[in-house]
Amino acid sequence: MSLLTVGSVAFDAIETPFGKTDKIIGGAGTYIALAASFYKNQQNIVSVVGEDFPEEMLQQLRNRNVNLDGLQIKQGEKTFFWSGRYHNDMNSRDTLATELNVLEYFDPTIPDAYQGSDYLMLGNLSPQVQRQVIERLSERPKLIAMDTMNFWMDIAMDDLKETLKLIDVLIINDEEARQLSGEYSLVKASKVIRDMGPKYLIIKKGEHGALLFHGEKMFFAPALPLEEVFDPTGAGDTFAGGFMGFIASTDDTSFDNMKRAIINGSALASFCVEEFGTERLMSITEKDLEERIAEFVALTNFEMEQVIG
Amino acid sequence: MSLLTVGSVAFDAIETPFGKTDKIIGGAGTYIALAASFYKNQQNIVSVVGEDFPEEMLQQLRNRNVNLDGLQIKQGEKTFFWSGRYHNDMNSRDTLATELNVLEYFDPTIPDAYQGSDYLMLGNLSPQVQRQVIERLSERPKLIAMDTMNFWMDIAMDDLKETLKLIDVLIINDEEARQLSGEYSLVKASKVIRDMGPKYLIIKKGEHGALLFHGEKMFFAPALPLEEVFDPTGAGDTFAGGFMGFIASTDDTSFDNMKRAIINGSALASFCVEEFGTERLMSITEKDLEERIAEFVALTNFEMEQVIG
Repeated sequence: MSLLTVGSVAFDAIETPFGKTDKIIGGAGTYIALAASFYKNQQNIVSVVGEDFPEEMLQQLRNRNVNLDGLQIKQGEKTFFWSGRYHNDMNSRDTLATELNVLEYFDPTIPDAYQGSDYLMLGNLSPQVQRQVIERLSERPKLIAMDTMNFWMDIAMDDLKETLKLIDVLIINDEEARQLSGEYSLVKASKVIRDMGPKYLIIKKGEHGALLFHGEKMFFAPALPLEEVFDPTGAGDTFAGGFMGFIASTDDTSFDNMKRAIINGSALASFCVEEFGTERLMSITEKDLEERIAEFVALTNFEMEQVIG
Repeated sequence: MSLLTVGSVAFDAIETPFGKTDKIIGGAGTYIALAASFYKNQQNIVSVVGEDFPEEMLQQLRNRNVNLDGLQIKQGEKTFFWSGRYHNDMNSRDTLATELNVLEYFDPTIPDAYQGSDYLMLGNLSPQVQRQVIERLSERPKLIAMDTMNFWMDIAMDDLKETLKLIDVLIINDEEARQLSGEYSLVKASKVIRDMGPKYLIIKKGEHGALLFHGEKMFFAPALPLEEVFDPTGAGDTFAGGFMGFIASTDDTSFDNMKRAIINGSALASFCVEEFGTERLMSITEKDLEERIAEFVALTNFEMEQVIG
């Protein structure tokens, strides 16, 4: 199937307790596309970079079967840049710099070749841009998934609520779910949020795993316990990319298949945090991914022959 | 089989955002014995109360097949009392009062009828008392599990380390595992702690579930996502009681059976937090427990036919 990804392609500079990078490649769209590229889909991407973005990285995306017709390259402008520093526990971070640059007036254009994309993953961007993409597609994709963040809840809640009415799967973290719903309990939050539009809600809890809610059903997948989390940047986007890459390649939106998609996303995210930025995602093979998924099966699988002894 | 539980039988007074109790029945030994009583074992308990402890509650334990020969009743003395207040997020609490009373000079005695107990669960008590119990058993039980807390790490680390050499399964929470090991990563912590003696380590993460470590194996069980956590008091002890009750009744200490035991413990703990103190544990039936376990299966179960799409 074909998967259309919308999201930033950007530069990041990251500090963690383990070290510090110069400008490296980042952005939600990059992580989503890289993760999704482990699955056999036609991949399309709608995004924007400045003239400072390295052609070499674009070639790497093309090599992974990502069609870049929808990636605008703005001459005379600079690529979006984010810089952040993680605290010792890796669960919180300070933003040191955000330079919107090309993203400030991003007007997403959908190339003709992208019309009819079967699946759509809207990475974290302004809810207005996310909505524009949906409106500019001549046919509604089979499943529309979307990420967002607290920033948009603070400054564009009405816009966000409009966009939520149009999508199927919302993928956010626990703090964002609490802010969006006004509920502390994630079970209660999941009901409030699904009343806003999305029939499916995935709440990412970082090192504590992820929850999928649909109707009266719940599914939980843990994160793989790791010796060391080196750099959490992009883990959530990688999760989303693995999730939608798997859904698109299997062309199956059943709840049972979404469980498998979540395990795939979790496995890819567990690689992402092992090195800075996209490094680890660029180096793993399909076999590495299969082995990691087998670790998830071993981690969570139990046989309940005898319920009560 | 027979299960010997050692732990406090006590009074608690609890404040949560939902309300406040007078003195109610609590104590690690009480929660462990109540949870374990869902399984078909001979239950023995070593503990101590004052003359102020209600005979009615003792009768309820007897009704649940708990032999109280090892429960000392100290005339002229008062039962251990703890009082605490939970914060809004229910993850942290302040201790308002701790009155050791009969626990201050507790000298555990093992009735003859308890000798030969097949399984031993050492609830949170001074590591010296925990060790005394092990030393006073004529035969080593098939499996010795133990709980402890940061308090003993602060004031009796050497004693604690001596006791850890004698046990099989240590059951502690994530913060305690970090303090005991000096490692932030739970995977690293699990190695350091298992080098201290216990071959099995269970790390409880509260609402984020529990991890079991043994050799190179890991198993993760989530906590059931709940609409409301009413009172977390005793949830960890209930988990331990369900775990050891199941292990003893199945008389199977394999890793696969420990997984099932953890699911049983998690299911019982998920009931415990639904009302104040022991109320909910006293009201549920075996059928309730079976249904709750089925919810855990539904929450975590996935079939990975197709690994990568």
